[in-house]
Amino acid sequence: MLSKNQKKLIAAMAQKKQRDVHGLFLAEGDKIVRDLLAAGMTPQLLVATDTWLLPANLVAEHFPMVITSRDELEKVSLQKTPQNVLGLFPQHKHHLKNSAIKNNLTLLLDGVQDPGNLGTIIRLADWFGIGDIVCSTDTADLYNPKVIQSSMGAIARVRVHYTNLSGFIEIYKKETGNPVYGTFLKGDNVYQAKLLNQGLLIMGNEGQGIRDEIGSMVTNRITIPSYPANEPTSESLNVGVATAILCSEFRRQASL
Amino acid sequence: MLSKNQKKLIAAMAQKKQRDVHGLFLAEGDKIVRDLLAAGMTPQLLVATDTWLLPANLVAEHFPMVITSRDELEKVSLQKTPQNVLGLFPQHKHHLKNSAIKNNLTLLLDGVQDPGNLGTIIRLADWFGIGDIVCSTDTADLYNPKVIQSSMGAIARVRVHYTNLSGFIEIYKKETGNPVYGTFLKGDNVYQAKLLNQGLLIMGNEGQGIRDEIGSMVTNRITIPSYPANEPTSESLNVGVATAILCSEFRRQASL
Repeated sequence: MLSKNQKKLIAAMAQKKQRDVHGLFLAEGDKIVRDLLAAGMTPQLLVATDTWLLPANLVAEHFPMVITSRDELEKVSLQKTPQNVLGLFPQHKHHLKNSAIKNNLTLLLDGVQDPGNLGTIIRLADWFGIGDIVCSTDTADLYNPKVIQSSMGAIARVRVHYTNLSGFIEIYKKETGNPVYGTFLKGDNVYQAKLLNQGLLIMGNEGQGIRDEIGSMVTNRITIPSYPANEPTSESLNVGVATAILCSEFRRQASL
Repeated sequence: MLSKNQKKLIAAMAQKKQRDVHGLFLAEGDKIVRDLLAAGMTPQLLVATDTWLLPANLVAEHFPMVITSRDELEKVSLQKTPQNVLGLFPQHKHHLKNSAIKNNLTLLLDGVQDPGNLGTIIRLADWFGIGDIVCSTDTADLYNPKVIQSSMGAIARVRVHYTNLSGFIEIYKKETGNPVYGTFLKGDNVYQAKLLNQGLLIMGNEGQGIRDEIGSMVTNRITIPSYPANEPTSESLNVGVATAILCSEFRRQASL
């Protein structure tokens, strides 16, 4: 059974302030918990029903684990459809060095607000071998439960950083000389542009796009053309969808 | 002020059964309502605060409209962050003829469950000039408020149909001779495959993919390769993201 304090701690994970005070985050579901364990993350607490199958190679690790009833697990879960395991894991700050990222494509998020969009972007970054995502400080919080759930375990492999974007870009450009791609409604047709797989790719806020201050630092403005050209259509693409199309096109060109 | 019956009718739109009984759906927010009006849809009821700006060319249309307080609009809204207008619109059944779709790319959804994913797919179909989406009967309901909101008005331009998929595909193949593309975790690399922009593109359920019965009717199995090849990564891409990448690649090849 869970203690009163354990229940309170799990419930507290719904709030960023509480997550930061405790330095923890909540991950729910077999797939995500397994991915985090496999990545070497040590939970502060695992809560599972007796139907959960612990990977055998992890049995020796001896992390604190509470076996509980399905009913109790459902009560503490923050998800609509609770699964048979959840874990409290320590937050992790990653160091970001230009020397380490200069030979790969790195994503920059300028004020992406929706946690679902951030989770989607982390998951697709994982698919496309993008190791680092650098976020403005007003981007959605990595440890928001919605981000964790929609990233589907990709946070075990993709490093997400929060920093002052303009300061970061300035130093990155000076130290690497790499291009800085920015996505706009008007820019070079992404299918015709020559895309280098060493550089930054900046995606903007859902409603406002990339801030002017950040936009002015972009060296290559690119756009995803609608089809057929010049017909009435949606005003824009969802930022997760746009990021997916761009990453796909960068990697397609890299594979030629 | 809204009558009690009007309030009840709006609240009923949260449930599929009630939506179908009344033949109506709820759209909230200036952008979506404008898009639906611009597409020639006549609302059964519009509810707006006095801050809403009605497009001048529509003033003459005389549809039933209630001006209400922000407070009352917030009370009847199904959204977390209500806007200054909502509308009840009639559901619309579109006819689907193979002769009308055989020269374009048509999307097929085999059991896509998440309303947000369906809305995302409708929005990106609009961007990529896909006029018709054919859904299995167990796909999320087009008129679910989450679908309407995440489609961002694209439902004014994209026709969404529900039918028995295997029956549809069988007749489509016979009548058009076009290819039937299906997306799988194993298939031809989509960047190297020759993609024709006349045909069907089938996307599967979030967890299970395409059903075997439907999969057996596919003529071209395609896949989005992860990058770099053969490194540990996420097991799959979100279905909205995968659809976006594939539609982008179909249209890129069409533009060559």
